[in-house]
This record gives sequence, C-alpha cells and structure tokens, in this order.
Amino acid sequence: MDRGPMTDSAFQTAVHTTRFLAADAVEQAASGHPGTPMALAGIAVDLFSRYLRYVPEEPLWPNRDRFVLSCGHASMLLYSVLHLAGFSLSLDDIKAFRQWGSKTPGHPELGHTPGVEMTTGPLGQGIATAVGMALASKMAGARVNTAGATIIDYRVFAIASDGDLMEGISGEASSIAGHLGLDNLVVIYDDNRITIDGETSITFTEDVGKRYEAYGWFVQRVDGHDPEAVRAALDRAVAEPARPSFIIARTHIAIGAPTKQDKSSAHGAPLGRAEIDGAKRAVGFPLEPFHVPEDAYVPFRNWTEQNRTRLAAWKGAVAALKGDRLTTWTDLSQRRIPADLFGQLVATAPTKSDATRSLGAEVEQKVAVLVPSVVAGSADLDASCKTAIKGANDVGPTHFAGRNLHYGIREHAMGAIMNGLALSGFFIPIGSTFLMFADYVRPAVRLAALMEQQAIYVFTHDSFFVGEDGPTHQPIEHLWALRLIPNLDVVRPADGLECAVAWTHAMTRRAGPTALILSRQKLAAIPRPAGFDPQTILNGAYVVADTTDPTLVLIASGSEVEPALGAKPLLEAKGHRVRVVSVPCWDAFARLPPTEQEAVLGVGARRVSIEAGTTAGWRGIVGTNGIVIGLDRFGASAPAERLAVEFGFTAERVAERIQAAL
Amino acid sequence: MDRGPMTDSAFQTAVHTTRFLAADAVEQAASGHPGTPMALAGIAVDLFSRYLRYVPEEPLWPNRDRFVLSCGHASMLLYSVLHLAGFSLSLDDIKAFRQWGSKTPGHPELGHTPGVEMTTGPLGQGIATAVGMALASKMAGARVNTAGATIIDYRVFAIASDGDLMEGISGEASSIAGHLGLDNLVVIYDDNRITIDGETSITFTEDVGKRYEAYGWFVQRVDGHDPEAVRAALDRAVAEPARPSFIIARTHIAIGAPTKQDKSSAHGAPLGRAEIDGAKRAVGFPLEPFHVPEDAYVPFRNWTEQNRTRLAAWKGAVAALKGDRLTTWTDLSQRRIPADLFGQLVATAPTKSDATRSLGAEVEQKVAVLVPSVVAGSADLDASCKTAIKGANDVGPTHFAGRNLHYGIREHAMGAIMNGLALSGFFIPIGSTFLMFADYVRPAVRLAALMEQQAIYVFTHDSFFVGEDGPTHQPIEHLWALRLIPNLDVVRPADGLECAVAWTHAMTRRAGPTALILSRQKLAAIPRPAGFDPQTILNGAYVVADTTDPTLVLIASGSEVEPALGAKPLLEAKGHRVRVVSVPCWDAFARLPPTEQEAVLGVGARRVSIEAGTTAGWRGIVGTNGIVIGLDRFGASAPAERLAVEFGFTAERVAERIQAAL
Repeated sequence: MDRGPMTDSAFQTAVHTTRFLAADAVEQAASGHPGTPMALAGIAVDLFSRYLRYVPEEPLWPNRDRFVLSCGHASMLLYSVLHLAGFSLSLDDIKAFRQWGSKTPGHPELGHTPGVEMTTGPLGQGIATAVGMALASKMAGARVNTAGATIIDYRVFAIASDGDLMEGISGEASSIAGHLGLDNLVVIYDDNRITIDGETSITFTEDVGKRYEAYGWFVQRVDGHDPEAVRAALDRAVAEPARPSFIIARTHIAIGAPTKQDKSSAHGAPLGRAEIDGAKRAVGFPLEPFHVPEDAYVPFRNWTEQNRTRLAAWKGAVAALKGDRLTTWTDLSQRRIPADLFGQLVATAPTKSDATRSLGAEVEQKVAVLVPSVVAGSADLDASCKTAIKGANDVGPTHFAGRNLHYGIREHAMGAIMNGLALSGFFIPIGSTFLMFADYVRPAVRLAALMEQQAIYVFTHDSFFVGEDGPTHQPIEHLWALRLIPNLDVVRPADGLECAVAWTHAMTRRAGPTALILSRQKLAAIPRPAGFDPQTILNGAYVVADTTDPTLVLIASGSEVEPALGAKPLLEAKGHRVRVVSVPCWDAFARLPPTEQEAVLGVGARRVSIEAGTTAGWRGIVGTNGIVIGLDRFGASAPAERLAVEFGFTAERVAERIQAAL
Repeated sequence: MDRGPMTDSAFQTAVHTTRFLAADAVEQAASGHPGTPMALAGIAVDLFSRYLRYVPEEPLWPNRDRFVLSCGHASMLLYSVLHLAGFSLSLDDIKAFRQWGSKTPGHPELGHTPGVEMTTGPLGQGIATAVGMALASKMAGARVNTAGATIIDYRVFAIASDGDLMEGISGEASSIAGHLGLDNLVVIYDDNRITIDGETSITFTEDVGKRYEAYGWFVQRVDGHDPEAVRAALDRAVAEPARPSFIIARTHIAIGAPTKQDKSSAHGAPLGRAEIDGAKRAVGFPLEPFHVPEDAYVPFRNWTEQNRTRLAAWKGAVAALKGDRLTTWTDLSQRRIPADLFGQLVATAPTKSDATRSLGAEVEQKVAVLVPSVVAGSADLDASCKTAIKGANDVGPTHFAGRNLHYGIREHAMGAIMNGLALSGFFIPIGSTFLMFADYVRPAVRLAALMEQQAIYVFTHDSFFVGEDGPTHQPIEHLWALRLIPNLDVVRPADGLECAVAWTHAMTRRAGPTALILSRQKLAAIPRPAGFDPQTILNGAYVVADTTDPTLVLIASGSEVEPALGAKPLLEAKGHRVRVVSVPCWDAFARLPPTEQEAVLGVGARRVSIEAGTTAGWRGIVGTNGIVIGLDRFGASAPAERLAVEFGFTAERVAERIQAAL
C-alpha cells in the first residue's frame, strides 16, 4: 500500500478521538451504541487513512472506494471518522446525533450524510449490498476500462457484525460473491463475541471462517486491536487476485471502558459518564466531551492528498475517452434513457393476447436495447419470469461484461445485490421471481424504497391463477402488502399496451423502486376506444369501457380487467349501466388530485373492485356503499380454470357476485 | 438397524413404482415436477421401509419419526411412497394429483394428506422447520422421559434440494441445529446439480459439505443411486451421538429418462409419454400408467409390522406413566390450558402505566406458569422484547429441559423453528423481535397461518415512537401488512388489561398464529367506566370513552388510544360529541356481524382512525366521509416526543388534524 508520512502517535490520537466522539455523542443523545465504535475505531481509522480511495469534497466520485458499515447501529463510528476525514460533517453535526433533521441519524442513512454509501441498520443488508456494489465495479469496469485506461475499478470495504453473519441474507450473498470471485470486496468481521442477549456462545458457535472458506473466500484471522496485524491482513486482502476477502478481527466491545468492556451492556445504551471518563483517563485523553485534538486530523489529510492526485488522474482518463468508449461511459454514468422512451415502447407494444409475463418480457427486450444500464437477473426463475436479456451474455466468474445475472434461489440476496448495483450509479437492475416470494425479498425492497433507489422487480405468477401449485405459490395478500410500502410503486398491467406503459413507468421512476406484477396465464388483449391516448395509462387508472351516466363502476387490475369487461354486458342485461376502469398502478393514481380521481372512478355510481387478492385496501377506494370482489382466504391446488369458478373470478361469477351484493 | 426380510427385488420394484407413479401423475395432471421424485425414489423407499418409525393407521402417533420433504415441489415422491406404505391415500387419490379437493395437492399440505407432516413448497422452510421438530423431540423428551421409560425420542428425516440450501433460512436454522447438537436430525441433500435455470454451476459452486461441517454437522457424501451406500450413510447418521447429520447424495434428476435425465427440462414440467415409456422399458416396467405391482407394497408391510410392535410398547410405557410424569405428559401432549385462563389473566392484569412490552411481559410470565407447553425465544432481543420466561432455564446443547430459546439474530429461522415446535404437538412457541423485523420472518409466519399452527409472535417497538433509531427501525406499513395475511390475528393492546386479554386471545387461538404488537414507550393506563366487562375486549374493538349521540368516533389502537382519549376533551371544547373506540384486534372485530360492528363504530357519526402507520386499510373502516390520521411516509431519527409532534400524534396535534379535516 501507498502510505503517507503518518506517525503512530497521530494514528493513536485519531483512534482515541474516534472512540470518544462516539461515546460522547451516545451519552449526549442518551441513546445509541457506544461499544462497537470504541472497538472498531482502529480499523476504521486505518481504512479511512490508508486504504479507502476517496476525496471528501467530491464524495460522489464515481470510482471512489465504497465503505459499508453493515452493523449500522455503530453509526457513530462512521460519523466520527467521516468528520476526521474531512467530509462535510461538523462537530456540531456530531453533537446533534440522533436529533430531528440532523446529518447524524441513529443509523447511517443514504442522502443525509456525505460519505454514507447506503442506509444500514437491518442486519445482513449491508454486507449483501456490498456484494452488489463490488459486482457493479466489476461489471462497469468490464465495459469501460481498456488496457490503457482504468475508469472503474473501485473496491468495497465492509464491516460486519455477528448479527450480520447470523442473518441468512449474508450467507446467500456471500455464496454469490465467492462464486463470482469478487476480489475487490473486503469484509472485516467484528468478532466481539457479544450480542444484545449476551455472549455469542449461547447460540453462535459455528466456525464462521470455515464457512466463508466453503463459500470460496480468502479468510484471515487477526487481533483487531493490533494495527500491524490488521494492516498486514488488509494488504493481503487487497492484493488477493481471485477471491473476496474475509478478515476475522477479534475485538473487545467497548475496549478500555473500566467495567463495561466485553459486556452486552456496552452494546446498545450509553456507557455512563464514569465509564467514559475512566476510559479517557486510562489513555490520557482530555475528559471534556467532544474534544478533538488537532493531531487527530493528520493521518486523513496526508492520505486525502494522495487521493486527490488519484482523482485528478482519473479525471484525465475520463476526459480522454472517445468514440464508443465515451458513449458507453456516458450511458452508464448517467444511466441514460431515451427521452422518447414512452413513445418507442408504446409504438411497439405487443397487441396479442398472452400472459403479461410474456408481453412484459417482450417490452423488456426493447428496454434493454434502448438502455445499456439495464441488467437483469432472476432468483432461478428466468425460465418462468422470462427476464433474461436476449443476446446478452451471462455475468460469471472472470466474465463481467454480460448483462444477465444468476442469483440462484436466493431472493433476499437478489434484492440486496440489486440495491448495490443501483447504488453504484451505473446500473438499473431488474430482478425476477414469483410474486409469492416477494415475501422473501421484502426487507431489501423496503430498503430500496427508503434509499430512493431505482430497482425493478418483476414478480410473476401473481394470483391463484397459478393453479396447480397451490396455496404456497398463490399470492393473496401480496399485492396490497407491497402497495403499503412507502415509495414503492406497484404496477399490474392487464395487456401488452399496459405492459409498455408499465415499463416506461418503472424506467422513468428514478428515485424509487417499482414492482411489475405479471400473470402466469394468458390474458385477452383489451379493446380500447378509437383515439385512446396511451398517456392516460400513466395516470395509474383509466376508463377502458364506458357508458353514459354509469350506475356501476367496475375497478379492476391486471388479469381481472378481462372478467370485468366480460361482466359488463351481463350486468347491462340486468339493467345496469357499467363503466370499467383498469388500475395498473394505484400508487400513481392516488397521487392525482381528488377531482381527477373522481373523474375516473365516478361519484354517483356504486364502485366495485375486482382483484384476485385481499380486499382490505380496496374497501376505502370503493367507499361505504361499494362492493369488493376479492379473495381473503388462502388459495388451493387445482387447475386455474376450476379455481376461477370456485373463487368467483369468471365473468359470469363476477356478475353474479355483484348482483348478489346489490 | 433392525431390518425385515426384504428382498432386493421387492425394493427395486417399490423404487420403480414410486418413480413411475410420480411421472404418470405429473403427466396426467399436465403439470408438476417429475424429475426429482424419479431421482429420489430409492432414498424415499429406503427411508419409509427401513428407517422411519411410523404406523400408517395411526399417522399422529406422538413419537413417530417425522419426514419432511423440504423440496415440496417433489410432492409426488411423497404421495407415491405414502401410498405404498399403507397410509390412507389410494391410487385414485394419486390419479387426482393437483385437482380441486384432492388429497394430493401440487405441494404437500398439512391436513390434506395423512403422513404429510408439514406444508412445503417455499424453499428453505422445510429444512428449517425440521430443525424445530427435532428440537421439540429433544425438549419433550427431556421433560417426560425417565431412565426406565422413553416416551419421546422421535427422529426427523428431511430431504432438501439445492434450492433449500441456497436460501438463507436454511443456513440460519442449520447453524442453530449444529449449535444445539441435534443428533436426531438427518438431512439428505439431493445434490442433482440442476435447477430451473440450468446447472447449479452457474451460481452455486460453494462447498456445501464444508459449510455444514462449519455449522458443526456430521457430513457424509454418497452416490444417491447406490442403495448400499445410502443405507450405510443412514446407519452412521442415525448412530451419530452428538451432531445433526447431513448426507450429500449425488443424484441424477429424472434418472432413466431417455433424453431428459440430468436436464432442467425434467424439473418442472411433464416428461412426455415417450420419455416415461422409454424409462419404463429400460427397466422392464409395464407401460400402463399408474401400474402398481403387488410386490411394491412388500418392503413397507414388513417394516410396518415392526413399527406396530414399537407402537404397542410405546402405548404400554405411556399407560405406565403416573404422578408428576403423567401430569407433565398430559400437559404437553394436550398442550393443556386452564379453562379459566381469561379470568386468571384479567384478575391479575397489570394496572400501571407502562410500555405494553413490559405489561405484556408481566402477563406472559403468568401464562408461562399456567401453561407448561409454552416456550419462549427471541432473535437476540430478549433484553428489549422481554419475553424470556423467568425462573426457567435456557435450552442449549445437551440441556433441553429449559423453556427459553436463543435464536440469535436469525428471525426467519426463528419463525420456522417455531413452526416445528408447534407441529410437534407439544409446544406453544413464543418468539420475539422488533415489529420492523416481521419482514424478515414473514414467509414463516404465512406458513404458520396456512398450516393453522399456534405460534405467538411478540413484535415490540411497534411504531415511529421507537424514536432515535430512525426509519430502518420504525415500522410504518407493518401493522396492515400483517393484518392482510389470512388466518393471522394481529393484536395491538393499549394497556395492561388489554395485554391480559391479548394473551388470552393468543393462547386460546389454537388453529392459527397470533402477533402481539407492543410498544417500546410507556403508555398511560386507560380509564374505563365502572362496571366495564373485560370480555368485551375480546370482540376486538370496544368503546373506551363515550358520550351521548356522538358526532365523532375516534378509532385507535395500541399507543394511539392515549392521544385519542386526550383529543376527546379538546374536540368537545370545539362543540363535537366524541366517542373513543379502542381496536386491539381488527381481525377479530371484522368477524363480528355488521350490526355488532356498527354498535361500536357508530352509524351516523364521522369516523376517525388514529394509528401510527399506513392508512390504506383504515380508509374502508372509516368510510367515505371518514378521516384517517396515520403515517404514509417513512419515519425519521429523533427523540420520540419530537416525532410525535412532527408526525402529528400528540393529543393536541390529533385534535388539530381532525378539526382541519372536518
């Protein structure tokens, strides 16, 4: 490693300052996690003053190394080091730890704090997302680097806790990282043997190192409080040419606290002033809270100077790009989308009757041609979800120029790796599985929504119409359970044209994820009135079949638009006047002004919702005198046609149920 | 092993019959998974004719060995063998594979088919639940066995697929099983190197055996098509005295199919008649579909005869139980609950103002004293969720008589292991974590609901009132997302009395899981009118403060009952007449007849819902002219009191928001 002229004394001062800023901030906030920042201060200072390539005044430099604090509860570790490293994070910001509107929330949150690369807190997400970030570096590099110019080759360093490694998602993602040989990923495992409920020995006695060797990682074991040992391990990790690295750093939580070192009590509550003062006295540190000796900044300053040189060289390399390489770089770094994407997709929208998983796949192929940033993967359901990009290569060990990813049967890791791909700034990830397994990936979806990342989930096999596979594979509550997540848009198109608009929706929605909900079974193409403007579909709900002065408004999504249209003449034969509204995206529609909503849903007429899923969410939409046609029980194993009759979703049964409810 | 006089020829016939029954049933259903049953037929026949202790006419014998087909899509493997083994499953049942109302749904479903021990299909759940079943055997045995009489010592055999082992949940649970040294658990890994999207080598190249060694398992590798090798491995596994066993059986999917052996195409679609006929011809099996040679039943008959002897001996041992042992056995085997549980809990309900996590914990201690079947565990949040049973021991390696479980930071495995504990028939499992992490455990919760198992989740830290930890730890959409799951009851009590009723609700609800949603922060005890009957709380919603002829009905749950009561005088000062309704359990209330609901919620008055979470579910309840006070955005990091003001949940802000909306 290229090292600045740093004295051990300055390093030690930086470490102690980091430890005590963390302890003081937790004390002042009267809440937080002091023990882990104290234990990891040495490693964090080393990372930020010897390894991580960053320039604090340009925190979004595309080729910066990424740091992920997977154990987000140790946020004060990160804030302390970011402050010392020169990021725009003042001592006053640190004093406002965990306060309303501060740059220093309880867990690191993307967008609040320069230098924070992702939101962490839910354990396991950080390390799994770091895998995605490292993969994105490889994939972007494979596209833009040449023998003469390296544009993207950033590394990812992550610190993970016992909790991160107990969570299944970390195992899923680590298996993928080992398979892919992501040698640009270094995970430091904070092996402190303490969790909230006591010593890890009460439940976590596996051989973690051996497990990571089994995944194909390069595993080292060090004393986390021996800087020379830590640096030697980091040097070897950075130099490792073929495998991700896993450094098991044995540490002591709240190291130096007179009575709370190695105790659970140091994990999630303030230490108390006596403990902090005792720890400060033991190393001759001033007792005054939030004291920062000038020396503490020194190691970072020298290192940053070197990185500024790196950044300048990098800018030169980027400026020298031309021709195809420049286009590739611009496409990737801006995640460029054609301005007339809507027009292009609608013009070529499939018109045939087919499953929306097939129609959507047809549109997706067009999207993939138009948007190089798009990469697609599946949790072993490409054959069913049809999301693989045609004509593109697979991404695999040593070959990262492809666009198709194989996540295996690991939905949760897929979601987190998609977040990492999105956070890289280069890719728009598509990931597919059955809607049922949205439950498996849900925590990562929520994090994408919270971080405002563009990720696109293709959830197919979206209802009991799955048929024979039965209730374990028939989503019931999933549509509304997804619609409830803030900043996630759920789009359930009903035919080829709606699929084209759905893809436009997902692609142009840059600050949040979109879930496309697609059918396994064939659906009839929707007849639309002459002169129909496809733009209206973007509103989220629109009239597909109307009548004068309707008495009934049937509101359906996806596969239920067809029986709604089929029920219309049956109900009209009974003397009703029926409008049919298709609702591909309730989230979008709910953002419209009430008057625009009423223009579509009607005011005087009785509203009927028709969707093959739970009804609780629809009851508010149809209103007090409305009718809900849905399914509030688990599904069953039988051919879909039989289930449609039994569960009341044929046109005839829908009409009957409405008649009965009137 | 104790073996009957079985000829190799009869074994071979049974294996072929199993293979072809599966292939024929999938062919006739025109859907299903033929390849894996064909590959695993030999192992399954061996298990059911040499290892598993069961008696088909008493499928619920409490000490039967359990078999779990974790790869539930291979259901025809199980159905074929269950038929041959003499369970109440006819050839006609098998011919009705995947049809409406049949005993042979697409995936094995608990309650549909004698001999099916759990519902499988969502990958990873089976193996993780098998860990819970094996643990339950150890825990029940530790309570009821004596040196002279073994009442419970059943073993659990599971077959798992690549997909099961890629899913993170299996890693979590396997780590726990290794830690606990569950030597009564044998998992056979069907290493066929094929998944839906192709060869496992495209994404699953880790050393699975080494990983299981790292978890502390006894790992063996065999040719899955060599019966002698399989039996030798099973013998060693059964004899292993300290570790769970993992047998890696190398198999060939669709073995014997002329062109589809070892192909992805054999995984999830009918083979086609030509392939089946080719496979039958190759071994001289009659081509006629669903043909069962009489010989195929022979190996199972002999084995069952031995097991009948075992069962008779077991019944003798149970009949000989007396005194404390008999009481213990009766309590466990019936999961006995006092008839007057409600009265006892309500009589001692805590009356002080406190966090419902603390009040609930107080009630839970009483429950634990009254109900020996209750066991409690936490995903490393005992210190926060307070669910550990006081005075009880921890369950750990070699000591299984305790009642407290440490799941570690593995929520998903916790949920599945709870399912296994419940499925044992002996335990009522309580499991705790923060409500936020309900997302991590969700697929297992759904399975508990689908299987109608009594499991009790204690989800604390139930809203933005968590405060400083910020949006990653503040549930927003979770309450309604849980309420949407069929057959899951969600109970969010508001004070000590409601906690007592909530625990009654959870304990007396035998055919489904219950989620108790509890606050981190202190809540004021609710004043109730003299003569208030606590039974009314069981209705799920009831009037806590009334007025004559109300104009406004405030409907609140949990921590929002307090600001609702606080808003009442403020609104009354503005001329409104205000009723306040507490809704601890909407699920229960929604099951009441509409007239009873209207008696509580009012008909003429305007309804206002007040809950610190998403509003979509409430809109239908308050109706077209109703008002929803909720939170449809992510939370923020700040002290809870500040957030209450910012998000509008103090009594004053609630009153203001209602005034503004009127």
